[in-house]
Amino acid sequence: MKLSQSFFYTLRENAKDEDSVSSNLLVRAGMIKKCSNGIYMIMPMGKKVLSKIENIIREEMDAKDAQELLMPALIPEDVYVQSGRREAFGSNMFSLSDRYNKRYVLGPTHEELFAVASSMDGKSYKDFPYNLYQIQTKYRDETRPRYGLIRVREFIMKDAYTFDVDESGLDVAYNKMYDAYCRIMDRLGLEYKIVKADTGAMGGLLSEEYQALSSIGEDVVVGCVGCDYSSNLEITEVVDTMEDSCEEELSMEVVDTPNAKTIEEVAAFFGKKESDFVKTLLYNVDGKVIAFCIPGDRELNETKALKLLGANEMEMASFEEVEKVTHARVGFAGPVGIDCPVYMDRQIKHMKNFIVGANQSDRHIKNVNCKDFEPVEVADLCQVKEGDICPKCGKKLTFQHGIEVGNLFKLGTKYSKSMNLYYTDANNQLQPVWMGSYGIGLERCMAAVADQHHDDFGMKWPVEIAPFRLAIVPVSLKDEEQVKIANDLYEFCKEHKFDVILDDRNERPGVKFKDMELIGVPYRITVGRGVKEGKLEWTDRYTGEKTEIAIEDVYSEIEKVFAM
Amino acid sequence: MKLSQSFFYTLRENAKDEDSVSSNLLVRAGMIKKCSNGIYMIMPMGKKVLSKIENIIREEMDAKDAQELLMPALIPEDVYVQSGRREAFGSNMFSLSDRYNKRYVLGPTHEELFAVASSMDGKSYKDFPYNLYQIQTKYRDETRPRYGLIRVREFIMKDAYTFDVDESGLDVAYNKMYDAYCRIMDRLGLEYKIVKADTGAMGGLLSEEYQALSSIGEDVVVGCVGCDYSSNLEITEVVDTMEDSCEEELSMEVVDTPNAKTIEEVAAFFGKKESDFVKTLLYNVDGKVIAFCIPGDRELNETKALKLLGANEMEMASFEEVEKVTHARVGFAGPVGIDCPVYMDRQIKHMKNFIVGANQSDRHIKNVNCKDFEPVEVADLCQVKEGDICPKCGKKLTFQHGIEVGNLFKLGTKYSKSMNLYYTDANNQLQPVWMGSYGIGLERCMAAVADQHHDDFGMKWPVEIAPFRLAIVPVSLKDEEQVKIANDLYEFCKEHKFDVILDDRNERPGVKFKDMELIGVPYRITVGRGVKEGKLEWTDRYTGEKTEIAIEDVYSEIEKVFAM
Repeated sequence: MKLSQSFFYTLRENAKDEDSVSSNLLVRAGMIKKCSNGIYMIMPMGKKVLSKIENIIREEMDAKDAQELLMPALIPEDVYVQSGRREAFGSNMFSLSDRYNKRYVLGPTHEELFAVASSMDGKSYKDFPYNLYQIQTKYRDETRPRYGLIRVREFIMKDAYTFDVDESGLDVAYNKMYDAYCRIMDRLGLEYKIVKADTGAMGGLLSEEYQALSSIGEDVVVGCVGCDYSSNLEITEVVDTMEDSCEEELSMEVVDTPNAKTIEEVAAFFGKKESDFVKTLLYNVDGKVIAFCIPGDRELNETKALKLLGANEMEMASFEEVEKVTHARVGFAGPVGIDCPVYMDRQIKHMKNFIVGANQSDRHIKNVNCKDFEPVEVADLCQVKEGDICPKCGKKLTFQHGIEVGNLFKLGTKYSKSMNLYYTDANNQLQPVWMGSYGIGLERCMAAVADQHHDDFGMKWPVEIAPFRLAIVPVSLKDEEQVKIANDLYEFCKEHKFDVILDDRNERPGVKFKDMELIGVPYRITVGRGVKEGKLEWTDRYTGEKTEIAIEDVYSEIEKVFAM
Repeated sequence: MKLSQSFFYTLRENAKDEDSVSSNLLVRAGMIKKCSNGIYMIMPMGKKVLSKIENIIREEMDAKDAQELLMPALIPEDVYVQSGRREAFGSNMFSLSDRYNKRYVLGPTHEELFAVASSMDGKSYKDFPYNLYQIQTKYRDETRPRYGLIRVREFIMKDAYTFDVDESGLDVAYNKMYDAYCRIMDRLGLEYKIVKADTGAMGGLLSEEYQALSSIGEDVVVGCVGCDYSSNLEITEVVDTMEDSCEEELSMEVVDTPNAKTIEEVAAFFGKKESDFVKTLLYNVDGKVIAFCIPGDRELNETKALKLLGANEMEMASFEEVEKVTHARVGFAGPVGIDCPVYMDRQIKHMKNFIVGANQSDRHIKNVNCKDFEPVEVADLCQVKEGDICPKCGKKLTFQHGIEVGNLFKLGTKYSKSMNLYYTDANNQLQPVWMGSYGIGLERCMAAVADQHHDDFGMKWPVEIAPFRLAIVPVSLKDEEQVKIANDLYEFCKEHKFDVILDDRNERPGVKFKDMELIGVPYRITVGRGVKEGKLEWTDRYTGEKTEIAIEDVYSEIEKVFAM
């Protein structure tokens, strides 16, 4: 590409509305441009990167004999009603009516439609296994889009679905995708961890996530200092290692606690530690108010809570809801005598004589014990903390932040049953198909790579996905020799189908160098005054190293770059 | 691809809900599957074809130095309000609200967004020209989706937009796209005509369409027996060759015409020809009732009518509307004394003493002349008929049906002005950018090729876009020699990266042959009993010809097929 004859721009100013370093760089490099909240235009320089990511994914999918197809994004709402997911997705799914008032949604993920697509009369066990995938646009009406391409509302996903006759077939298919994803992430140059995760609205038997490690990651990746344990914070078990208290159980006593509302204030009032308290958190869970009791020094894990209740959505109860079930002002909820179901964290079993809210304004109860109230269920409800015990080896847990770039789901027969995807087995009996589902977010991969591979001057794309691997920069357009040599090199590249930049713009060399650094071209040939002595300058974007190189030697260097 | 280990199916039965031969074949060949009205899933076999079409288009666009990018489909409604097209598209555009009640549409075409994308501060005349394109999903809420992939509501379009500093620049850019489109259509194997067309809701200076000739084409392509004239019926001028009548003008006379309502009945009643009548057609045009007067033997051309009135939509007036402006039952409208604006076709100027409806039930007026009523405007309002005079050479016009597979628009400065895309010229003055817009519908191309290239047995894809160029079919899986030779050939192809089908299914040979014919594989190698004598059978799908070929010679034949 000759820059003088192309659409090319970079921005000197920082983007006003970007909340991460890497998204700001992508905007400044002319790779993306915001169109609306959580909706971006992928500009030509960015499309180069995205297409290369797409090709890597396609190659690795094809290598596993997956077959590509293409589904619509505009899908009759009925399809999701049939699987029971219309409600689960709720307002996260964009929905609309057509001119005849038929209801449609914009597909957030395509388990249902792939089941429909591959269902047909007379399907036999001989027709399995197979793997179908697409690289297609998805829509999710996120409450809070952020971090550039990381949390957006329209994005391209590679979603694959496997179809097998039984669980062991699914295991094989799943492991193939696991391998393919590792290869993809490696080729993208991502530093990542594979973690066990919640199956969530997707359902199924198992889910694992590919988490690209990053300080702006919204997920917490839990690891262990002692073993290879790794898990998403959402589902990590709090190992129940607390010992039973050997105190004698005392009788409950209501205590006036004026002006003490936060747990710290109440603890100070009683002269106790936070861990001597039981916190009662009130939530609206799918429309019903629920109390969750957890040790005073812990946080509630909402994923575990939702799972325990088989619910879709939860949010903190409103003031009105709190007052209705506690008959008191906000801040004094407790499990004793509250007017709503109580779920209790299992660690509380070991506690004695703890302090709780009294369900009366400005009052707490001390010396409460488990016999004093009746939880609906006792379970692991807490978030693990860094330094907690590893569920696998007992050593200490560590935390890192991660961007979820891919995920794998063993779905089992959930969708085949709801969408009527059955086959006839060897005994002529109808059986549900075993499905798996496997996603990679393309823009999110691009953003994660950008996040892991940049410096203050711009992007440092890995060679395989750089928009261009090489830039040829003549220093002075007035110097005929420089121009000629730059053009010769460019023509050489064209002949060899090496897609390179010739920066033949009439700009100062400093501007050109800065632009090539900003867009993250791995290698640069500077054609400057050295040409008089037959010399060029070779610059490596990764190391910053500059090397003098003889003109006659540069051709083989170029070939090396394109053989990478 | 080994069929035994792949997702592969064909259907013996005709599709119940397809209204064209070619769409039925595409469904039966397992290439497409209907998801909803006007919304299809492109199944793996169809995706192969579609991807090849996509690659051809991308190659030809890149050859013209167009740069690819990617826009969202979910676009703030404001964007179309700003350009004035929100109303023009009306209910043809899908629209929706997000969770915060912000209004969005699903983009039907992206002139606005490309103008926005390429506008930035300090744009100078030196930054031009450039050409940006995308291959991206479009949405149109068609009233009547039909003919399989031909008129759908979700489809992929390659849309390109050129940006120039002046009209002569636009001309150059336009001509480059004209060339690229010819190359694309040629490579797709389409028989097509390029016709002048209406600029419609798009606006601008000029539009041309690429019409693939087909009996199911919804457009009428007007040609000429004597010259290269070609035009869409919508805009073809009716040459005004009628001579002034030399009759003397008589006085109007109201005549009772009981039981005669159609023009044929009234003509019979009067003993006159249809051409002695002036028809008055009542339409609701953008909400207003309008009368169009045309010669009795002609049809109204709605495109011309809309253009004349600068209107967006028109439909036949309702019974109530007709009765309101005529004060009579439906069927007796006439220009004399009607309570609505009248537009008159220019040929009527030459007529004398014609018959019109009387605006009274069961009555007509005879001996009407142009002086007897006052049209708002006189213009060319009629549809040309086959055999009419060519506007270019005067010989006779001919009609063919066409499927619009591509179009070119010289937009001028309409969108740059409304979307604020200006540049600074050499004199430091702000000037609006000159834009062009160029579209190709990918699925529609696929459908048009299918329509032009099939027989009773299935598809006959041109080599370059066939899902597979070659199929290797062992006749008997029990014959070890056949299986070995088929596998050898398959391995040879794999080594050479020739993407072929090995039909290793345990099916009767007839089933396999029929399937390969249905999906339209151009060449087939049958590995049968002949292998004992070192012979294979080579079948050409286009000619049906079968040739015996020695095993040692088949390798070079295969290479030839993949060098095509």
